Amino acid sequence: MNDDHPVLVAAERARAASYGLAVATREQKDRALHGMAAALETHRDTILAANADDVARAEEGGTPANIVDRLRLTPERLAGMADGLRDVAGLPDPVGEVVRGSTLANGLELRQVRVPFGVVGMIYEARPNVTADAAGICLKSGNAVLLRGSSSARSSNAAIVEALREAVVAAGLEADVVQLVPGDSHESVKVLMRARGLVDVLIPRGGAGLIRSVVEESTVPVIETGVGNCHVYVDAGADLDKALAIVVNAKTHRTSVCNAAESLLVHADVAEEFLPRVVPALQEAGVTIHGDAAFTAYADVVEVTEEDDATEYLSLDISARVVPSLDAAVDHIRLWSSQHSDAIVTDDLTAARRFTAAVDSAAVLVNASTRFTDGGEFGFGAEIGISTQKLHARGPMGLPEMTSTKYVVTGDGHIR
Amino acid sequence: MNDDHPVLVAAERARAASYGLAVATREQKDRALHGMAAALETHRDTILAANADDVARAEEGGTPANIVDRLRLTPERLAGMADGLRDVAGLPDPVGEVVRGSTLANGLELRQVRVPFGVVGMIYEARPNVTADAAGICLKSGNAVLLRGSSSARSSNAAIVEALREAVVAAGLEADVVQLVPGDSHESVKVLMRARGLVDVLIPRGGAGLIRSVVEESTVPVIETGVGNCHVYVDAGADLDKALAIVVNAKTHRTSVCNAAESLLVHADVAEEFLPRVVPALQEAGVTIHGDAAFTAYADVVEVTEEDDATEYLSLDISARVVPSLDAAVDHIRLWSSQHSDAIVTDDLTAARRFTAAVDSAAVLVNASTRFTDGGEFGFGAEIGISTQKLHARGPMGLPEMTSTKYVVTGDGHIR
Repeated sequence: MNDDHPVLVAAERARAASYGLAVATREQKDRALHGMAAALETHRDTILAANADDVARAEEGGTPANIVDRLRLTPERLAGMADGLRDVAGLPDPVGEVVRGSTLANGLELRQVRVPFGVVGMIYEARPNVTADAAGICLKSGNAVLLRGSSSARSSNAAIVEALREAVVAAGLEADVVQLVPGDSHESVKVLMRARGLVDVLIPRGGAGLIRSVVEESTVPVIETGVGNCHVYVDAGADLDKALAIVVNAKTHRTSVCNAAESLLVHADVAEEFLPRVVPALQEAGVTIHGDAAFTAYADVVEVTEEDDATEYLSLDISARVVPSLDAAVDHIRLWSSQHSDAIVTDDLTAARRFTAAVDSAAVLVNASTRFTDGGEFGFGAEIGISTQKLHARGPMGLPEMTSTKYVVTGDGHIR
Repeated sequence: MNDDHPVLVAAERARAASYGLAVATREQKDRALHGMAAALETHRDTILAANADDVARAEEGGTPANIVDRLRLTPERLAGMADGLRDVAGLPDPVGEVVRGSTLANGLELRQVRVPFGVVGMIYEARPNVTADAAGICLKSGNAVLLRGSSSARSSNAAIVEALREAVVAAGLEADVVQLVPGDSHESVKVLMRARGLVDVLIPRGGAGLIRSVVEESTVPVIETGVGNCHVYVDAGADLDKALAIVVNAKTHRTSVCNAAESLLVHADVAEEFLPRVVPALQEAGVTIHGDAAFTAYADVVEVTEEDDATEYLSLDISARVVPSLDAAVDHIRLWSSQHSDAIVTDDLTAARRFTAAVDSAAVLVNASTRFTDGGEFGFGAEIGISTQKLHARGPMGLPEMTSTKYVVTGDGHIR
């Protein structure tokens, strides 16, 4: 790898610019964020024209309509992006927060303080709104960002970033705290993934394939996000009215998101009563049930396979099984869950305690839809993604999760 | 890679055993730790005999005396290992700690709770005491551990682990929460490093080469530890008596450790007064100074090179330069520091604030020796290593750093 590869040059510039951003005051960062929001509005026509190019190219290339829809910006969507930046300005600054502190026996003052990572690489697909969201969250948390969006959104992303950089400079910060990764090739992503020492953290957002390839190939530390094979387990002690509402909501409220339910487990003791209710309710909502023998007794239920157990459908499909016990449900979840969000419906406190202790997922929910695993719902105000790994951040990642810490140790000539 | 590779079989067994350990009470874990300590004493003769074999083999193989010394166990060292396990039993249990909690506007109860990682892989060199230390820290934090020590310590490690497992079982936990990685070959380490999904975290402890190779080759998330190219910067505003004591202490108190100073920077304004004091003081302590022109004016100072700037000597050597300003010191540290521990000596509050804000290391010290960056000194009671990465844990890692978190969300039929 060449030291003057454009991606490494961009990373070097991000690194240099990150030093000033790391010590910028909240006041200065919030001024930049408001400026960035205004710039999206000022440059609305340019951004929409650039986006129209991307959309036209996608349509010519035969891109499916739902993907084209994700790519498309409208005045309303652009206004939403600007509002998002203003929301981030309203959130507390995580940098400088003292996480832990004490005075040691020898009088040394110990403070563990939040600091930015430094340089964050974002690798994401399609939606150009992520470009503004990620830039805003990184800026507020004091991180320079290298943005690598989908090549299908290249014109949109370039226009958005140009507007944002203008506002960053106007606020007295260096433009290079927000950059697009130069180049569209897979090689440029590869260089980014091997830029250990220049890039502090990589956050891939997108499908399972993208995330797996980043995890496999990267030497830069990665925060894994977003793959959700989520379960709802209806316990013997469940209130079946609540169970029905939760299953239908978790499956159908929005199907294309990582916190949607993909799998239903029903305790054998309530199957006879619950199946006649849940099967038609799901089917009426347009859901295809992939079920075991207890479910295929109903019309239009497809036989479930292990592949179904493993699948994050992101569609109106659900796998469904009857299990003999809570322990069997836990075993099934341990085997197949992506450890994003798994829920139990029960009024039995012992069952709830056992489930929440045994199921090791980013979020374990009791009598609540898996759809609640979300930075907005959790009150974080902004979310860069939902981490499904155990190192660093787990679950919805807000501003504090976009920081590291350092220890500041103050003495008066202390030696050992 | 074969699914029934012995390393993967061991990892599967660790995974299965980890479920019980994750929900074990503090009482049960502490009973196991006390039993492990007693077992090291009960099996003293067996362990020392096994260690004598390792030592004899190392000596026959021409291993340097200082490495043989690190390998050697004595009744005193074994007693120290047992005491270490009892100390861990005395520490609070991090598992179950509520890190953050609130009730959301819709009545959902949100709790972010510490949970074990699951399965931890430790890859380390030489010292067999790490085997007991790591087993104790992992057990207390609820993690099953796969121990991969140096092949030179294989008999010692096998004897220690056998004793520990006996005590684990006696305490009602599964033996497989503490295992040696089967096989001595590099291939077995490779399999461990690719066991993503079975192993949750890898912690390499050892030289820079070991750590780099784990970081490069592993698909399992890694916590980088321990490489320390640490700096002491003597500011224009320094109390030179304190500066002298700190420089000598940081360099000579113990040279083979990661928090020893390897580089001295002196502000030009105090060089004329400080160099005539620090040069002889270091030389009298047996230190070889690798200095720039200001230093080579003194007898027996070797000319410094960029290689010296980059080197973690771990010996009685120090690189030394005069810098024109605090900013120049910061630039030098940004370029060369391993971001472990860097210190400023100054009585100037503005300088201290600028240095601690600008230097991004796991520990930034003011008027204190770099030797204080240590879990014991920080009051953590036990330390698995000192993280020099920005994700997850940074600085000395105690028991809380050996955990992840999960969100437990409790509702009453909540849907979106």
